[in-house]
Amino acid sequence: MGTVIGFIGIGVMGKSMVRNLQKNGYHVLIYTRTKDKAEDLIREGAEWKESPKEVTGQSNIVITMVGYPHDVEHVYFGVDGIFNGISPGKIVVDMTTSTPTLAKKIAQEAQKRGIGALDAPVSGGDIGARNGTLSIMVGGSKETFERLKPVFEILGNNVVYQGEAGSGQHTKMCNQIAIASNMIGVMEALVYARKAGLDPEKMLQSISTGAAGSWSMSNLLPRVLKEDYSPGFFVKHFIKDMGIALEEAHKMDLKLPGLELAKQMYEAIAEKGEGESGTQALIKYWS
Amino acid sequence: MGTVIGFIGIGVMGKSMVRNLQKNGYHVLIYTRTKDKAEDLIREGAEWKESPKEVTGQSNIVITMVGYPHDVEHVYFGVDGIFNGISPGKIVVDMTTSTPTLAKKIAQEAQKRGIGALDAPVSGGDIGARNGTLSIMVGGSKETFERLKPVFEILGNNVVYQGEAGSGQHTKMCNQIAIASNMIGVMEALVYARKAGLDPEKMLQSISTGAAGSWSMSNLLPRVLKEDYSPGFFVKHFIKDMGIALEEAHKMDLKLPGLELAKQMYEAIAEKGEGESGTQALIKYWS
Repeated sequence: MGTVIGFIGIGVMGKSMVRNLQKNGYHVLIYTRTKDKAEDLIREGAEWKESPKEVTGQSNIVITMVGYPHDVEHVYFGVDGIFNGISPGKIVVDMTTSTPTLAKKIAQEAQKRGIGALDAPVSGGDIGARNGTLSIMVGGSKETFERLKPVFEILGNNVVYQGEAGSGQHTKMCNQIAIASNMIGVMEALVYARKAGLDPEKMLQSISTGAAGSWSMSNLLPRVLKEDYSPGFFVKHFIKDMGIALEEAHKMDLKLPGLELAKQMYEAIAEKGEGESGTQALIKYWS
Repeated sequence: MGTVIGFIGIGVMGKSMVRNLQKNGYHVLIYTRTKDKAEDLIREGAEWKESPKEVTGQSNIVITMVGYPHDVEHVYFGVDGIFNGISPGKIVVDMTTSTPTLAKKIAQEAQKRGIGALDAPVSGGDIGARNGTLSIMVGGSKETFERLKPVFEILGNNVVYQGEAGSGQHTKMCNQIAIASNMIGVMEALVYARKAGLDPEKMLQSISTGAAGSWSMSNLLPRVLKEDYSPGFFVKHFIKDMGIALEEAHKMDLKLPGLELAKQMYEAIAEKGEGESGTQALIKYWS
């Protein structure tokens, strides 16, 4: 097939996603802020471009996977940005975890220009990106979604169309909201167990397969027991996401006390220097 | 085998547990506050006694499964209680979710009298009790645990010795602590999804099998979507358990902000009349 995919943002996630697209026969044009980070992909056949605008000019589909909402804003609306180099009939997909409000703004701008736009954040982390087993939550027009589905199915194994523009981001917020309070519960169980003189491994053996069980309990608590605080997901990014969710909730006049508490607790450990640690470093709230 | 088991407390859980013991050949003597509730068990061959003391006099092992810590206190230390009818060599097992402090008090009293004592609370609910698939968390002397193991293995399929007296109760507290904050996260995800105009079932499809996934999300949120608030586990009992955990944490000089918040939120819905509902009624915090 002659479809050319532009990919903007070559971080841990983006790099694996580009490789999966290449493996499936797509020619991929890439841009990221620091060219050094893309050297290996370039050696593997990805084509380097000097700006998001340049990437866009020669691609049929442009995927963005950058850091923060202000990066998304810049990549789409900046002087060298996507909307400055795009022609009708193309499709843009933001897979960054960003704000539903910005996703709607991009979709509106795209519609004016006859472009398809989707918000499609993911969960599943670096391992999911590598193995093509991401969960992809998609918002935007159903028709554009159907056209992009073959691409999403290369990148993920749980691809769900969630509704109008912004719905993908809203769904990702639900994901982060559920994780936030659960992380508190899981860490409080451990800190209680230690104080009470229990053997944490035996405690987990009793409770992790029942009603208290969760992905975080089974996957992150064992890391804490090994004092492994390496990032599966960065504390600083989690704080960003919780901030977005709280802001959106505020706009909807919705109070989320658990999420508020979780954000405060994560900010407390970030102040202690844990911003670059994995989210399991929440245990340090008590140290 | 000639072992006679006394069973005190014939609620939803107790009844199923007695039946499993009978199926495995044990003769069971029973007592519960309201005899009416035991009529079916009596027809099925259980032998009714008029008090905990009477049950104890004719049993080798006495199991208690009552409601609140003050019921446990009464059943063990009351005038017609277990310690008033017990002779050396017997074993008492409290399977009620009660306080670690009371578990230690029972163990001390038992030791003085040459009796074995275990605290062995469970998780797994009415279904686990019926199917003999409870998780049983055991505290007390290792030797007594080994003697009781064949009985526990009739009642549960995840029997773990946790350590000295009180450790079973402490482990159960870890279970409830982890559930408490997770329930907030799960409900906040749902309430956010609804406000944002998402289809909650699609949202769950995207997030329930990944890092946000948990037993509560997979098992309780679908009930909320069907407006089914029937109790798998009563709000009022959950509030009791959270109160015990907070009190124990306080004694250990440990602050658990997530648990504190969860208790407040559950108390708020109990005040709205949801005490007899299942814990998934937490969604009503927002209505």
